[in-house]
Amino acid sequence: MSGIFISFEGPDGAGKTTALKTLMPLLQAKTNQEIVLSREPGGSPISEKIRKIILDIHDEEMDSRTEALLYAAARRQHLIDVILPTLKENKIMLSDRFVDSSIAYQGGGREIGMAEVAEINDFAIDGHLPDLTIYFDVSPEVGLSRIRKDHEGAMDRLEKEAISFHNRVYDSYMQIVKDNPDRIKAINAEQAPEKVVADALAVIIKQFPNIFNKGE
Amino acid sequence: MSGIFISFEGPDGAGKTTALKTLMPLLQAKTNQEIVLSREPGGSPISEKIRKIILDIHDEEMDSRTEALLYAAARRQHLIDVILPTLKENKIMLSDRFVDSSIAYQGGGREIGMAEVAEINDFAIDGHLPDLTIYFDVSPEVGLSRIRKDHEGAMDRLEKEAISFHNRVYDSYMQIVKDNPDRIKAINAEQAPEKVVADALAVIIKQFPNIFNKGE
Repeated sequence: MSGIFISFEGPDGAGKTTALKTLMPLLQAKTNQEIVLSREPGGSPISEKIRKIILDIHDEEMDSRTEALLYAAARRQHLIDVILPTLKENKIMLSDRFVDSSIAYQGGGREIGMAEVAEINDFAIDGHLPDLTIYFDVSPEVGLSRIRKDHEGAMDRLEKEAISFHNRVYDSYMQIVKDNPDRIKAINAEQAPEKVVADALAVIIKQFPNIFNKGE
Repeated sequence: MSGIFISFEGPDGAGKTTALKTLMPLLQAKTNQEIVLSREPGGSPISEKIRKIILDIHDEEMDSRTEALLYAAARRQHLIDVILPTLKENKIMLSDRFVDSSIAYQGGGREIGMAEVAEINDFAIDGHLPDLTIYFDVSPEVGLSRIRKDHEGAMDRLEKEAISFHNRVYDSYMQIVKDNPDRIKAINAEQAPEKVVADALAVIIKQFPNIFNKGE
């Protein structure tokens, strides 16, 4: 494996997905490596089928542990179908969410326990942690207000959760960031979008200076 | 919880499903309790959706760990939707397969490791082991020959596996039976169907004499 695996984490409304749309072509232009962007859960035919069950707004009776196991299953298949082949081809893999999302959302948000959810995810990823994780730091209030503006009337099951759920997710993310200082770097995601992208890029340049074209 | 939870385990072709069709009305007649019969994976709307992904013959690229996580997810939801409500209502719950199937098939058969698969299933069942497990003991040769006769041309992904896989499943089941003498009772499933049902019934009578009508 000689590619680079970077995951992007943060609460709902942190602006990860939007930032990645700008960041990806920017990285492509500034490095000599091919970039592959994927999202979790999903990114491969089997994972997309699992994603569909997880996000189905009618599955209101889904138990929290079932949900955590489904996320872990989708993650595993995404790793096998997309991430590992990308790294093997020496490319840069950008993943919109990875294990930390489950630990924060299911472990903390749904109160299953962060350690318990980490354990089933260890089974799923079997040692393949990201080389770098960029955490988009945004308060639950700002994050939720952004979501409400974006998709009113079409919020999925997770986004419909109460503010207390989102507060627990935020606190769990803070704990995960604190516990993994080498792997996870936080950026201020309440800034203007172009500043967020610039900060994310700066983190990547600092961590992997050798992949960037000379003079950049 | 005051109901009784009994799971039925064994390799493919052990005759569990057929035996349960006879055993269920028999138990119903001989006890004062209501009997609920369900199968794994599935038995509830969400679990059936997961089952569909697992057993889809076109999902040939499914990774073994993904499969194990999906079985654990379906099991969890089946437990929440079917098993626990049944036990709460003081009924007798018969489940065609439960955790031991995953440990034998995914842990042993697919060589993920029995302990690893047991761990994600501990997460799924959260302490709710069966009160009794009846193991249908049948050699891989006899089991497979029965399957081939039954559904030639329409075998699912698991059943299409090589004989070496089925040998590993058998060996794993033997280990599980040996490790859980209190919970698991083995019966000879190579006998005539009516003898198998009689043996299963005898095991249940011996374990739970109080649920049977007087004089039986």
